[in-house]
Amino acid sequence: MTQISFRRARETDLPSIVAMLADDELGRQREDTSHPLAECYRSAFNALDADPNQFLAVVTEDAVVVGTLQLTFIPGLSRKGAWRGQIEAVRIAGHRRGSGLGRQMFQWAIAQCRERGCNLVQLTTDRDRLDAHRFYEQLGFTAGHIGYKLAL
Amino acid sequence: MTQISFRRARETDLPSIVAMLADDELGRQREDTSHPLAECYRSAFNALDADPNQFLAVVTEDAVVVGTLQLTFIPGLSRKGAWRGQIEAVRIAGHRRGSGLGRQMFQWAIAQCRERGCNLVQLTTDRDRLDAHRFYEQLGFTAGHIGYKLAL
Repeated sequence: MTQISFRRARETDLPSIVAMLADDELGRQREDTSHPLAECYRSAFNALDADPNQFLAVVTEDAVVVGTLQLTFIPGLSRKGAWRGQIEAVRIAGHRRGSGLGRQMFQWAIAQCRERGCNLVQLTTDRDRLDAHRFYEQLGFTAGHIGYKLAL
Repeated sequence: MTQISFRRARETDLPSIVAMLADDELGRQREDTSHPLAECYRSAFNALDADPNQFLAVVTEDAVVVGTLQLTFIPGLSRKGAWRGQIEAVRIAGHRRGSGLGRQMFQWAIAQCRERGCNLVQLTTDRDRLDAHRFYEQLGFTAGHIGYKLAL
């Protein structure tokens, strides 16, 4: 098995990341993979990159981006001022799915949250993705909440 | 009905906010309401106050704090670089529960998210709180996700 590495995303990674975001049924309708890359992605990248409580990460294998995820570190008063780590926008390149990379990415993300002093990691996942539920439960997550969304 | 106002929380609001956080079964076990207020709450407040993507809010009525909530504005690449607003740590003073204040707080929070250019508002709620589920559904939220948490 080749070596994977994690690092903070750079602006030059944007086309690879957007390609992964667009590579499923929902993403195809939601994203814009035209070249040159749409300006909306560059401004979102700048907002992420400027925020010390955001960590947009990529996983590389032989210098090729094969995965991405976004960590948000959230301060809060409750639980005696505990920080939470939130994992979102996890994507894996098509040819690397089903290879255990997802597990390595989550283990890395959880370790990052621990390093930042978070005492809770949270994420939401689609109600119907039963395979994902099993995966998160194997990682030690418990499903005690319902995730509500409102489109504006 | 008296007039309510919303504003950013100040350090002097901390005792009122922590008292609300501690005023339920779980909160009583998790929080520390001793005087003077534990330092952990002051450092959490400073982290919130210094972060332009955090908005810790209080609701006042005749200058008395009767509610609190925390908004987190989250940049992201997906959905063409859309911002999300996340609502957490919503609490209402005991004597004001069941008076419609919660609805006003959520309507205000949703309006804040819209003003900041978010195109999605998200929150999670305990799986067993059926009354809360009805409340969020009446506000237009849809329950498409499961919320997973991992204690570190």
